[in-house]
Amino acid sequence: MSSSLTQPAAAPPVAPPTPSQLADRYRAVRNRTLQLAAPLSAEDAMVQSMPEASPAKWHLAHTSWFFDRFVRATRAGAAPVDPDWDHLFNSYYRSVGDAHAQARRGLLSRPSLAQVVDYRRRVDDAVLALLDRGDLDAGTLQRIELGLQHEQQHQELLLTDIKHALWCNPLRPAYDPGLPQRPGVASAMQWIAADEAVVEAGASAWPRAAGFAYDNESPRHRVLVGAHALASRPVSNAEYRAFIDDGGYRTAGLWLSDGWDTVEREGWCRPLYWDEGLDSEFTLAGTRPLDPHAPACHLSLYEADAFARWAGARLPGEFEWERAAAGVAVDGNFVESGLLHPAATGGGAADGHPAQLFGDVWEWTASAYAAYPGFRGMAGALGEYNGKFMSGQQVLRGGSCASPASHLRASYRNFFRPHARWQFSGLRLARDRP
Amino acid sequence: MSSSLTQPAAAPPVAPPTPSQLADRYRAVRNRTLQLAAPLSAEDAMVQSMPEASPAKWHLAHTSWFFDRFVRATRAGAAPVDPDWDHLFNSYYRSVGDAHAQARRGLLSRPSLAQVVDYRRRVDDAVLALLDRGDLDAGTLQRIELGLQHEQQHQELLLTDIKHALWCNPLRPAYDPGLPQRPGVASAMQWIAADEAVVEAGASAWPRAAGFAYDNESPRHRVLVGAHALASRPVSNAEYRAFIDDGGYRTAGLWLSDGWDTVEREGWCRPLYWDEGLDSEFTLAGTRPLDPHAPACHLSLYEADAFARWAGARLPGEFEWERAAAGVAVDGNFVESGLLHPAATGGGAADGHPAQLFGDVWEWTASAYAAYPGFRGMAGALGEYNGKFMSGQQVLRGGSCASPASHLRASYRNFFRPHARWQFSGLRLARDRP
Amino acid sequence: MSSSLTQPAAAPPVAPPTPSQLADRYRAVRNRTLQLAAPLSAEDAMVQSMPEASPAKWHLAHTSWFFDRFVRATRAGAAPVDPDWDHLFNSYYRSVGDAHAQARRGLLSRPSLAQVVDYRRRVDDAVLALLDRGDLDAGTLQRIELGLQHEQQHQELLLTDIKHALWCNPLRPAYDPGLPQRPGVASAMQWIAADEAVVEAGASAWPRAAGFAYDNESPRHRVLVGAHALASRPVSNAEYRAFIDDGGYRTAGLWLSDGWDTVEREGWCRPLYWDEGLDSEFTLAGTRPLDPHAPACHLSLYEADAFARWAGARLPGEFEWERAAAGVAVDGNFVESGLLHPAATGGGAADGHPAQLFGDVWEWTASAYAAYPGFRGMAGALGEYNGKFMSGQQVLRGGSCASPASHLRASYRNFFRPHARWQFSGLRLARDRP
Amino acid sequence: MSSSLTQPAAAPPVAPPTPSQLADRYRAVRNRTLQLAAPLSAEDAMVQSMPEASPAKWHLAHTSWFFDRFVRATRAGAAPVDPDWDHLFNSYYRSVGDAHAQARRGLLSRPSLAQVVDYRRRVDDAVLALLDRGDLDAGTLQRIELGLQHEQQHQELLLTDIKHALWCNPLRPAYDPGLPQRPGVASAMQWIAADEAVVEAGASAWPRAAGFAYDNESPRHRVLVGAHALASRPVSNAEYRAFIDDGGYRTAGLWLSDGWDTVEREGWCRPLYWDEGLDSEFTLAGTRPLDPHAPACHLSLYEADAFARWAGARLPGEFEWERAAAGVAVDGNFVESGLLHPAATGGGAADGHPAQLFGDVWEWTASAYAAYPGFRGMAGALGEYNGKFMSGQQVLRGGSCASPASHLRASYRNFFRPHARWQFSGLRLARDRP
Repeated sequence: MSSSLTQPAAAPPVAPPTPSQLADRYRAVRNRTLQLAAPLSAEDAMVQSMPEASPAKWHLAHTSWFFDRFVRATRAGAAPVDPDWDHLFNSYYRSVGDAHAQARRGLLSRPSLAQVVDYRRRVDDAVLALLDRGDLDAGTLQRIELGLQHEQQHQELLLTDIKHALWCNPLRPAYDPGLPQRPGVASAMQWIAADEAVVEAGASAWPRAAGFAYDNESPRHRVLVGAHALASRPVSNAEYRAFIDDGGYRTAGLWLSDGWDTVEREGWCRPLYWDEGLDSEFTLAGTRPLDPHAPACHLSLYEADAFARWAGARLPGEFEWERAAAGVAVDGNFVESGLLHPAATGGGAADGHPAQLFGDVWEWTASAYAAYPGFRGMAGALGEYNGKFMSGQQVLRGGSCASPASHLRASYRNFFRPHARWQFSGLRLARDRP
Repeated sequence: MSSSLTQPAAAPPVAPPTPSQLADRYRAVRNRTLQLAAPLSAEDAMVQSMPEASPAKWHLAHTSWFFDRFVRATRAGAAPVDPDWDHLFNSYYRSVGDAHAQARRGLLSRPSLAQVVDYRRRVDDAVLALLDRGDLDAGTLQRIELGLQHEQQHQELLLTDIKHALWCNPLRPAYDPGLPQRPGVASAMQWIAADEAVVEAGASAWPRAAGFAYDNESPRHRVLVGAHALASRPVSNAEYRAFIDDGGYRTAGLWLSDGWDTVEREGWCRPLYWDEGLDSEFTLAGTRPLDPHAPACHLSLYEADAFARWAGARLPGEFEWERAAAGVAVDGNFVESGLLHPAATGGGAADGHPAQLFGDVWEWTASAYAAYPGFRGMAGALGEYNGKFMSGQQVLRGGSCASPASHLRASYRNFFRPHARWQFSGLRLARDRP
Repeated sequence: MSSSLTQPAAAPPVAPPTPSQLADRYRAVRNRTLQLAAPLSAEDAMVQSMPEASPAKWHLAHTSWFFDRFVRATRAGAAPVDPDWDHLFNSYYRSVGDAHAQARRGLLSRPSLAQVVDYRRRVDDAVLALLDRGDLDAGTLQRIELGLQHEQQHQELLLTDIKHALWCNPLRPAYDPGLPQRPGVASAMQWIAADEAVVEAGASAWPRAAGFAYDNESPRHRVLVGAHALASRPVSNAEYRAFIDDGGYRTAGLWLSDGWDTVEREGWCRPLYWDEGLDSEFTLAGTRPLDPHAPACHLSLYEADAFARWAGARLPGEFEWERAAAGVAVDGNFVESGLLHPAATGGGAADGHPAQLFGDVWEWTASAYAAYPGFRGMAGALGEYNGKFMSGQQVLRGGSCASPASHLRASYRNFFRPHARWQFSGLRLARDRP
Repeated sequence: MSSSLTQPAAAPPVAPPTPSQLADRYRAVRNRTLQLAAPLSAEDAMVQSMPEASPAKWHLAHTSWFFDRFVRATRAGAAPVDPDWDHLFNSYYRSVGDAHAQARRGLLSRPSLAQVVDYRRRVDDAVLALLDRGDLDAGTLQRIELGLQHEQQHQELLLTDIKHALWCNPLRPAYDPGLPQRPGVASAMQWIAADEAVVEAGASAWPRAAGFAYDNESPRHRVLVGAHALASRPVSNAEYRAFIDDGGYRTAGLWLSDGWDTVEREGWCRPLYWDEGLDSEFTLAGTRPLDPHAPACHLSLYEADAFARWAGARLPGEFEWERAAAGVAVDGNFVESGLLHPAATGGGAADGHPAQLFGDVWEWTASAYAAYPGFRGMAGALGEYNGKFMSGQQVLRGGSCASPASHLRASYRNFFRPHARWQFSGLRLARDRP
């Protein structure tokens, strides 16, 4: 063990935004959602391909409902912009009322997409008027910030959900056939060693701390991270293909018991969107040749874990990952690149840091999603945001090609069930060191 | 037993239509489908609220596919109008290829409603060109006739499916809020007695016989119908309400075993579209007060059977019904009335015939759907039209307020599973006579 | 149509048994059940291999409960022999109390088999004492008769249920390895023609008529049976094997839609108990070579129907069958032969009658199980015996190698769901005649 | 953070047992299993009340199979004692062959209980002969030790599975009605504070280390445990009753999202075995009055977590628990007490240690079951013992009133799915300290 505390720098103190700055950011984030939905017809925006996914129209509406409910309607005398819709666009906030069943969101032909876009406008007008007036208390300003972070999460889900929806159509239509491609070459994989150390992880609780972080990232706390090594980049398609060719999907001994049951029940034999020939895949631009250099994607935890075992390695713990990412600039292939698909960077380890930590693919970790010691959920209904999902889910780190750059940070914890494959999820290998 | 054969008149011989008559009828039926879909947005036309129901867009496409597949593409050298869509719009004709899964029809945002309407136009142009050319063989002309009958069936399903779809939306939107209403008074219920007799039932096999009938209605054959009595009109909402008030849904002894299991599992306590207060119901015009005089509707076979037992009666056999309907003009409240809802007629037994046999509500019978002696399915792929469903389904007779008048006849056999409630299905009582 | 009524002889009037005759019969039937259970260990008698089947111990107990409940405990002041067990051994008589869930009968390790056998003895003592005393009213005597008929039904179920239970054990243990075999040769199949006729079918309602029949067999009534032909014997294993070899289980067009769904979902490719090699089968004596001459057995309605279609024939209607059986002596391979397996008889059509109508295998008919016109269920709780199952089931006729001979008659209607295969169920072909 | 490493004493080095010592232990453990099964009839020993539970007979057989497979049959030329049974009694070791489906273990009436007891004897004779001969290599001796640990696990499962099986019988029969009771008084609950410290946790890998531990307990490694406080004893029935009375089962906000779904789906409103009146509970001695002082038991993780949230506390992390237990003698209410039920001890915190850490109830922790850094599964087929279950399960610590004392240690990690309630599982509260 290292004799002294190795303390990665926490994010530097940030001043909270002014109302005017917040209004600018509000406009930008809200417009961005509309832009992401722009390629979709009203019919596309209706499709719900599985209970866990939501129609694009619902994402557009629910994110607006969030501001309506938690910003506008918290003010004295304010009713929801449209009380009839209140129940339709609640996701799971039981403390503010019943919610329309998640699995039946795809049945809502009314309100129409045009009505939902108008609903967004009405909510936006109201929120921006509040911001203009300039007399908002700190709590309301914070809920606006939270609403924008929430909206950014849904921007990514809008993309992953519509990708699944379009893939379910035998015509395999593209979200946008003209998406650019960026061929690259995967660098040679290297191991980046780290000694045992006690480090600080997580984020200080917002809004006490100025920099935004979700409640599930706090409190910042000390953890002991053992000696280990991390791969310099995520696993590539070519590497994952070798696992398939070696019979990975037919070898029970490589899999977690739950994973093997899923393989057998679902007939899994390749990543979600790969074609049977293993040489092309469905993307938001339609079916395209598989790039062997790009990070492998649309894997479940079970597949990531089996691959790692096959490779004689393991998945990283979330604090191994966070320690490596602390102090690293949040650069990478995010939604802003416009690729909407993972790509090889060619970059290798720099300054002893693993590369490609942010963007391209969310990286499954070996850590179950659980509360940090001292965790406190947000007050009131917003306390339902994160904490109640701390069961049966696994942490992913780093963000993807569908994440907004400004939404990510080293302490960010994403979480999904182990069988989920429709996110841009891949893996980076880790291994123990003596 | 009556000493001689009582033989209701079979339908009089009808000459097959000329190609030009058929072209006129083709235009009329095909246009009618578009008119029925006209109140729906592209989003409405996407909704599939349960596996057994289909989106309106799919009905529009599938009925066109039927002509494309069985009329146009049977000609030498003809490929489907759009080969990519061939598989999407096949329903269950296994012998002409795989079909898109029934339960996943609601995921097809593409082709769009506009593309489907255009597809209809292209199919229509091709079929009408064939008819114009005037050199179609008898088999092709018959398949056009069959396609029109098929389309009329789907016109009714389009209405019942969209009614269910809109009802699943908590906003309970109307298909058309301006549908007219026709208040009436239910006549006093009378029993119309009939003696035992051997009668002819069913229809002569089309196309050998000129008048159209489905294969499941033939051959025309003799059956012995025992002495019985039929109610002069269908059961009314007020009568059904008395059954509820008397604890009908809580009394196991009134129900078939499968029916009681369904009541308990599904929590049934009233007809499908009735409100909890039992005084209003969902209609294609939205929620409206319940008319106590109108025929009770949206009942399963289980409910119809339990009601009949409670009333000290039973359901009619299909030949009891057909014998009463033979020779009766096919008049009634059909889709052409524009009500799209059952209504009381005030009419009673006329000339010793039960009233309201046709239209308003399909009447559940005590007869399982089975082959008549000597039944032969249509040749080729069209043999899958009816025969293969002769298991687990029950016969309904008479047509409903959503049926096209020209689609019905005394020998017509509709069939649904015993638990189905989303059709306009009600009942007429029968009883034995010593 | 034949110009006059062709009336097969109804069963001749029979005097009801005297109490002493009934006591003798009671002893015989009750002992027979114990004999059938004798080869089973207490552990064997516990197994419930599927919800529709019951453990042998439960059959032993439930048949006793029937006498306790409907004979003994109907007398003034009589409580059930063991009130704690009353609920355990009720099957589905909702009007006399809740019943232990059918699917959980296999969890009842207590009462033990020894206790159940003792319970039988206590019930027998009580019933026989009542009979001895000689002052039983007609209704009670009738319920004793009904209880014996009921017990005979359960004797057959005990055998079919334990056969399934033992087959589920990978060791494939025999119920009795020493069961005799009776090799035979299937006679050449002939068609026995019958003209159209109005016949009487069914049985006069017991107990008004002295001869026992279940309520579902009455009233005796006239039906018109069309011209047809019946096969002279059931379909043999060799014939069924030819269907398999011809791809019968892979040809959708041969199957009812529900049947094909079942084939695909369950992976059916041969009769229930046949081995993969199609040359041996599981019997109550363990696995034995398949006799190509014996009637094919353990078929669902779906398989019987598909075979008939493949053979260019169809299943007989229940009245076609009953008309052929009327007046035929109830001879055949029943449980009394001790074979407990179907066997070829070598017999062909005799006197213009089909052979092997009774015994060997229950014969699926084309008739859904429904009420005869004028049907009245038994009074009181016993009204639940038959009528409430008249939905979703199909009629089988003739009895099997596991049926007691004295339990059968030409009007007897057995019924099972179309997918059921664990009974000794086979088929006889029929076809239409011009 | 404490400035120096706080290192709880690891278990002292232990010499491996001699073959003769091992033979003595073998006889003792194997006999103990038979004694635990002694109150059961062959019928009781057949019952499988849910897929996750196994019949007692299967436990008796499988534990013998383990020795047969992994000790006896690994020797040159040795076939399984009974090759036909090999597949029946394999649980989930895919690498040594297919296993009989877990959910169908209750269908195995053959081999009989007597045959299984004889099978045990034959395996025992063979294993003891090998030990007698004295020429066993270290690996085989270790597999014998592992087999005994494995058997002890199944001793506890035999008790919890039969408890569930008997409870499913409406007669609620006792496993042993004469089990003694030990009334006690729950001490006042105190909080035992602990400062932040880096501690060693886990066990050194056996068999390199002489003291037995499962692979999932190693390697021994450093972890940082934050400042916190642990309750001095488990939560009592009286305390849990207060949670119920306060509406705990009706307050969504107290529950994990998965937990609340379970509450709603399953209708949970009290611990598994409590009676509706909340004043008695089913025990292995039958139904007995609920002791308010005894530890609450048969709780799922969801219930434990909801209770803790209601109490303003949380569940302990597994290392918080282990740190408190390190160096504490393994004393408590184990299976050897003969109570087979949790009991109040009256003991409070002693020497700053929480009381009742071992025995009575397994204590749910906040830790998902996962690999320790550097974890290596056992070699070969035995590698399937633990590692493949590291998904979807939660760690419990401390052992129960059904655990053998010699099977437990501070580093022992039990694991079950979050919804499981049929183990003797309860909870101890923890809370953060600033």
